[in-house]
Amino acid sequence: MESTVPEPEKGVAPPPPPPPPPKSVAERFLYDIILRVWLFASTLVSVLVMVTSKQTGLILVPPLQIPQPVDAKFTHSPALVYFVAALSVACLYSIISALASFLAMSSPRHHTKTFLHFIFMDTLILAIVVAAAGSAGGVAYIGLKGNSHTGWAKICNVYDTFCEHIAGSLGLSLLAAILLIFLIMLSSHSLYSLIS
Amino acid sequence: MESTVPEPEKGVAPPPPPPPPPKSVAERFLYDIILRVWLFASTLVSVLVMVTSKQTGLILVPPLQIPQPVDAKFTHSPALVYFVAALSVACLYSIISALASFLAMSSPRHHTKTFLHFIFMDTLILAIVVAAAGSAGGVAYIGLKGNSHTGWAKICNVYDTFCEHIAGSLGLSLLAAILLIFLIMLSSHSLYSLIS
Repeated sequence: MESTVPEPEKGVAPPPPPPPPPKSVAERFLYDIILRVWLFASTLVSVLVMVTSKQTGLILVPPLQIPQPVDAKFTHSPALVYFVAALSVACLYSIISALASFLAMSSPRHHTKTFLHFIFMDTLILAIVVAAAGSAGGVAYIGLKGNSHTGWAKICNVYDTFCEHIAGSLGLSLLAAILLIFLIMLSSHSLYSLIS
Repeated sequence: MESTVPEPEKGVAPPPPPPPPPKSVAERFLYDIILRVWLFASTLVSVLVMVTSKQTGLILVPPLQIPQPVDAKFTHSPALVYFVAALSVACLYSIISALASFLAMSSPRHHTKTFLHFIFMDTLILAIVVAAAGSAGGVAYIGLKGNSHTGWAKICNVYDTFCEHIAGSLGLSLLAAILLIFLIMLSSHSLYSLIS
């Protein structure tokens, strides 16, 4: 690195540091696009796994205690419905933002503002995804363990496949949240590197 | 880009650009500290309201159907325990980061790196707070409405004060999340304004 900067000689002030090479900025946008493609994949698979979680189990229906087939679907819980809606929004956003990132990589004029807007939007989507994962996780935990204090019985002993789908979907939403945090860090560090 | 860099003349390099006016940066740190004081207040009150939510209600205990006093406490739900832990972490973080912001306002050397670190840390704390609010909200919604599909009965008809405390605490955690989003936007816009 030192060999590229010439030594100041004869009292002449050193030249100002060169602007960051455009290759580096393009490289940052490339990482950005790669992360957004991963975000797209994780949110899409998360939604698909949740939507296909329907399972039919035999439940003793209270009045007569006769086993009857009862469905478990994600639409039975408002938290899981919100989860599907939020992850779908994040999935759509990943497509739009990846396109925006690709366009910004092509035009060299508006890099800084693009990074700023990415931080704003990624933060909002992160909040939506994490809130959805939290609420779905809270409800899924009751389904898994039950709650003896409130008399809420666990259901995962009957609906095993349903619960496995929910667990897989939650894991993928966690991956999506981590990718969004990395995206925010990448954009903010890109802004920072343009200053120093 | 080229027009902003003056042409070097007579072999002497141009003087470096003047640093950004410290008044504007100090003002930004002042807003930052004000937001962090609000964050401290909202997270502290949220934790206090949740911790003091204990209520005793008369419940028909199943075998004999005799009304007996039964407590409702936040420690009965893992989601609410996580909520208190997460909001306590955010409360502690608001104190430390307000002090860091105050120190950064005093020393004019490391502004850019401080803003970058604030974005990183605020994003992580935002994720923790929103996940806690989501999981507590998901569980509280079951307590409020019940779920007929899984046979989970609502409890807020018995434990009204308990549920009011949880609702108030959730509202304050939502305020804390909004404040954290504003803090991230302020820090990233400060970085951006140092470039342009």
